[in-house]
Amino acid sequence: MAPQLDNYFKQVDTLAETFIDRLRAAVAIPSISADDALRPEVVRMSSFLVKELETLGCTVEARPLGPQPGKPHLPLPPVIVARYGSDKAKRTILVYGHYDVQPALKEDGWNTDPFTLSIDEQGRMYGRGSTDDKGPVLGWLNVLQAHKAAGTELPVNLLMCFEGMEEYGSEGLDDFIKQECQKGGFFEEADAVCISDNYWLGTQKPCLTYGLRGCNYYSVEIEGPAQDLHSGVFGGTAQEPMTDLVRVLGTLVNTDGKIQIPGVNEMVAPVTEEEKALYGAISYTMDDLHESLGSQTTMQDSKEQTLMARWRYPTLSVHGVEGAFSAPGAKTVIPAKVIGKFSIRTVPDMESDKVDEAVFKHVRSEFQKLGSKNKLNVSLQHAGPWWVASPKHWNFSAAGKAVQKVFGVAPDLTREGGSIPVTITFEQATGKNVLLLPMGSSTDAAHSVNEKLDRRNYIEGTKLLGAYLHYVAEEPMENGR
Amino acid sequence: MAPQLDNYFKQVDTLAETFIDRLRAAVAIPSISADDALRPEVVRMSSFLVKELETLGCTVEARPLGPQPGKPHLPLPPVIVARYGSDKAKRTILVYGHYDVQPALKEDGWNTDPFTLSIDEQGRMYGRGSTDDKGPVLGWLNVLQAHKAAGTELPVNLLMCFEGMEEYGSEGLDDFIKQECQKGGFFEEADAVCISDNYWLGTQKPCLTYGLRGCNYYSVEIEGPAQDLHSGVFGGTAQEPMTDLVRVLGTLVNTDGKIQIPGVNEMVAPVTEEEKALYGAISYTMDDLHESLGSQTTMQDSKEQTLMARWRYPTLSVHGVEGAFSAPGAKTVIPAKVIGKFSIRTVPDMESDKVDEAVFKHVRSEFQKLGSKNKLNVSLQHAGPWWVASPKHWNFSAAGKAVQKVFGVAPDLTREGGSIPVTITFEQATGKNVLLLPMGSSTDAAHSVNEKLDRRNYIEGTKLLGAYLHYVAEEPMENGR
Ligand SMILES: [Zn+2]
Ligand SMILES: [Zn+2]
Ligand SMILES: [Zn+2]
Ligand SMILES: [Zn+2]
Repeated sequence: MAPQLDNYFKQVDTLAETFIDRLRAAVAIPSISADDALRPEVVRMSSFLVKELETLGCTVEARPLGPQPGKPHLPLPPVIVARYGSDKAKRTILVYGHYDVQPALKEDGWNTDPFTLSIDEQGRMYGRGSTDDKGPVLGWLNVLQAHKAAGTELPVNLLMCFEGMEEYGSEGLDDFIKQECQKGGFFEEADAVCISDNYWLGTQKPCLTYGLRGCNYYSVEIEGPAQDLHSGVFGGTAQEPMTDLVRVLGTLVNTDGKIQIPGVNEMVAPVTEEEKALYGAISYTMDDLHESLGSQTTMQDSKEQTLMARWRYPTLSVHGVEGAFSAPGAKTVIPAKVIGKFSIRTVPDMESDKVDEAVFKHVRSEFQKLGSKNKLNVSLQHAGPWWVASPKHWNFSAAGKAVQKVFGVAPDLTREGGSIPVTITFEQATGKNVLLLPMGSSTDAAHSVNEKLDRRNYIEGTKLLGAYLHYVAEEPMENGR
Repeated sequence: MAPQLDNYFKQVDTLAETFIDRLRAAVAIPSISADDALRPEVVRMSSFLVKELETLGCTVEARPLGPQPGKPHLPLPPVIVARYGSDKAKRTILVYGHYDVQPALKEDGWNTDPFTLSIDEQGRMYGRGSTDDKGPVLGWLNVLQAHKAAGTELPVNLLMCFEGMEEYGSEGLDDFIKQECQKGGFFEEADAVCISDNYWLGTQKPCLTYGLRGCNYYSVEIEGPAQDLHSGVFGGTAQEPMTDLVRVLGTLVNTDGKIQIPGVNEMVAPVTEEEKALYGAISYTMDDLHESLGSQTTMQDSKEQTLMARWRYPTLSVHGVEGAFSAPGAKTVIPAKVIGKFSIRTVPDMESDKVDEAVFKHVRSEFQKLGSKNKLNVSLQHAGPWWVASPKHWNFSAAGKAVQKVFGVAPDLTREGGSIPVTITFEQATGKNVLLLPMGSSTDAAHSVNEKLDRRNYIEGTKLLGAYLHYVAEEPMENGR
């Protein structure tokens, strides 16, 4: 039986200005987690959420995470956990979002004050945090309010987890999630997870995201003389770490992104016909890519190849060199120690430590070929795993139906190139399916100047989040894979 | 007839404390040319020289050089030109030095105040400018004073050129020298040039320097997308300027310093047997090099090979990359535009524009091989020519005899790896032989913390400068090649 959503949708439309006021109030709080001096504002933002959630009838707790690592006198902002409903007969959906934001200064190039929600004639609502991630977080609150106004019962139990340090590495969150997902924890009963903290692939068509690449970040350190040398005096007498380094870095990847490290590409899961079929229908063009890049210097020529390269194949980027001359102008230095930095975006079925092994072996072997007396040290700086969920799970099919209902189209099924570590934490801690259900669009400029959320995305997005909960409640359990 | 120097030498010894006081007074003036705020101190140092030179009986002029380029309200410090004697029957020697110094702060790691001459038990006289180049400049003044005290006539006419911007690029000096070397100019009558602004190869044996390498400095700019990209989102879709760059830079030179650019090594003048014979006798060991490097990561295994690599062969150093990630830590950026910097030290008979041609052709061809859609731009940032003088000229043989007289050994005949542009300016402007006659030793730490000049180098060095003028007066003219 299709869910009855008309009343709910009507109330969302009626309450639209109230929802925008809620966003305006949230944007006005500069909850920048990277700025120690603004920590009180981050805490103020958590109190704002607590109050709103309580008013809407939730059970709410502000959970302390202790002091910030390395800063014993600076408490981390609390994680806000909330529950709405505890009916054993209903499914329980755990949603995640963050109430902290990226830094923003008017002087960075904003057209309006970043902490004053400014709406233009086209309904673009500018303000830091509007799309990342205050809009989506408040979307869940709006869902509760509109249900109440419509007199519609929420068809699921809703668990919420809103953190205040996402833009600064989610300090302390992993352990907290793991603990609360255990028996007796706040999230114990979650049947599935929904995270709204990414973006549509374009501006018109919603998407559901079912995969993220991982990232293994490496350092290649090459060391020779005890201190930097003057190339006039010592050029031609001392073997130079920098010439070793560029030659080693030059062996890693070719112009079209094919990784040259033996064994790495072999770890990649083959493309199935079923997967291949997904790419053609996706609303994306090479022009979209050219526009994002500001150039036509693409590695592939077709949309399908591009999307696969971006989502389901590994890639290697050389980010830079530490210890060499990096300023404008000319300096005749021979750097004594240089550290090349590169990373590999990982995908199924690459195993992180097998990748490390292949990288170390290749780098050492290429360095050995140089016959250099300098000292090499290649190491992993950090690794974050890839993630792929089953888009056939009821969690996804419910969301797909909700998109169809609200926007009149079937959503694109997308992956993303970058990692969102909390996704994997939730998957592993709950053992349940995790859905990424974005509210904002590709032009929202999260982390940049003039961040915005379109009114349509916010209001229809609120409808979408609510509709999703209704379809979730109706999905047959056998899709639970 | 061997010159009679005993009386002069005796007076140098007698006046030693006076000469050290003169150095103390000069070091006390922080004539840092790089610091606009200290320009009055640079000017004060010029006035100090004018007064001293006048007291010693010289004709002196402080010549203005106009405002500093780009700073219309900041006058350059004057060039001090002076003449002692104008006997048409005598040879005329033009000497050059600089009275400005490198920046120095006690906090940089100096053991004593950099602008207070501090002498330890071993006679090491610490202070900024002690060896570079106030000691050598005052050496010429000491020569005049000791001759006067000894009642010995100066056997040559002495022309002096002391500048105050050497440590900041000798702004305005080239044109000045060219003009003053023309007919009617202050330096018109110079028969040879002597510059004391470099260092012995070691600490025990003096040297005469007859060659310097040149330097051609290049930029390789590779540009792709319009702005930096996130490697998670765009890695695998956009061709990366940084991976192109490391591959191009990796083709320039091998581990042992052999330049891989076709045509460059072919321009190098072959080693003659005569030249080859010079290296064996030079007081230098691989241990000296290991000590300077703080490592054993040398390109060559023998002293001779090392000295030739340092003085008479070209070399190529990769200095760094502008535009890429260069800080500690990890950043997953794809730099949109990167600029690799490298330089080639040039030697006889390399022609600067032929070298450029070979470099541009090679870099473009290697880039082309990559099949990249990114944009390449390779350019010369600046070029300074190499210099080699004839060590058989009377200017050198006179200096050699003076070293033998004062130190009891024949000097090493050395070249240097780095460039001293004013050398070539003087050679070209006068058309005469230029001799580099260092006073300080290899351990003097010019440009570094705890710069010093050994008492022995200063006092015996004053004897050397004076003795050089006497031997110059006696050299047969036929050695004037
Ligand atoms: Zn976010
Ligand atoms: Zn963010
Ligand atoms: Zn100097
Ligand atoms: Zn200097």
